[in-house]
Amino acid sequence: MSTPTAIDFWFDFSSPYAYIANEWIDALAARHGRPVRRHAILLGVTFQAAELKSPVSYPLKRDYAWRDFDRSARFAGVPFHRPEPFPLATHLAARVFWWLQDTHGEAAATAWTHTAFRAVFTRNVPINDPVALRQLVSEAGLDAAQAQAAWNDPLWKDRLRAENDAAIALGVFGAPFFRVDGEPFWGNDRQEQLARWLQTGGF
Amino acid sequence: MSTPTAIDFWFDFSSPYAYIANEWIDALAARHGRPVRRHAILLGVTFQAAELKSPVSYPLKRDYAWRDFDRSARFAGVPFHRPEPFPLATHLAARVFWWLQDTHGEAAATAWTHTAFRAVFTRNVPINDPVALRQLVSEAGLDAAQAQAAWNDPLWKDRLRAENDAAIALGVFGAPFFRVDGEPFWGNDRQEQLARWLQTGGF
Repeated sequence: MSTPTAIDFWFDFSSPYAYIANEWIDALAARHGRPVRRHAILLGVTFQAAELKSPVSYPLKRDYAWRDFDRSARFAGVPFHRPEPFPLATHLAARVFWWLQDTHGEAAATAWTHTAFRAVFTRNVPINDPVALRQLVSEAGLDAAQAQAAWNDPLWKDRLRAENDAAIALGVFGAPFFRVDGEPFWGNDRQEQLARWLQTGGF
Repeated sequence: MSTPTAIDFWFDFSSPYAYIANEWIDALAARHGRPVRRHAILLGVTFQAAELKSPVSYPLKRDYAWRDFDRSARFAGVPFHRPEPFPLATHLAARVFWWLQDTHGEAAATAWTHTAFRAVFTRNVPINDPVALRQLVSEAGLDAAQAQAAWNDPLWKDRLRAENDAAIALGVFGAPFFRVDGEPFWGNDRQEQLARWLQTGGF
């Protein structure tokens, strides 16, 4: 038998909907015998390419967006606490992800996504701040000095930039964004369609 | 017992997601003993107020949007044929809706939503064209001359304008948009949350 192809999952650590999806994607994938391949990206870059903005940047949409983030988290059974200020810069945490992915492996990188997302969306940890990020890395049992060296290293800066470019080239314009066997799904609210697609091989 | 409060449902006849929602909202409401109160509006006006644009107007998002319209229709078991050109002006059909609502009653207005939405999204009927719209009205068993008089009448122009203003004042910025007991839900993809809200009275 051939190896089942992965579900690609793109996220930015400042996306509330990606935080929620990060909590359910592994169980859904496992039910269908699929691995998950995570991609930390920077939404600011893809928004710029797509001429989009964050939903909270539109006046009429802002109040609804915060209400919907919170309600969608409750609907999924995931704790949610509104971070302030928002959005926050996530390039350091994203570089930590790629450093872990390439040097510690997929499991360590995945664990980091849970650590960083939960820190932002349940404890208001400012992961854009190097001091707070060092502490978070330590709490996660990683070497803070190594992590900081990595997030300042051009190697991981370039890695993140290349992943952003690759995502944009594949048509990724928001988060969470998924691809299954070439089929794109955008949004935490595409969970049901993604599940049916995995179940049926397309509909 | 008090009368159950209605589910308010705002739509524009050029919204594919509102077309899909228009097919399931009555059954969902009926399961929970709720009436549906429909509101035809013009998304162009609310987009302007919210500084938003249609998803198909963004370069990177356009291809995904069409794919998702089509897939979301299949997911809901609703036929879908991409209309060309798109979007199309819907003020005439919206005025017919309000004319029917106010002079023929809720059932006639609801029947018209099915007629007009299905004409646009399964048969590519250009409902912005008075000749095509007259024919559609006749097919629906209505008086075409009366309908045309209505869509040209300042009375129904003002009615539609007032409904748009009221929608914007309530925070409606897209379609389909729902309100249940003060709780707003935006999008065909909020069906599950809306259903749970009706079931539980809030979560």
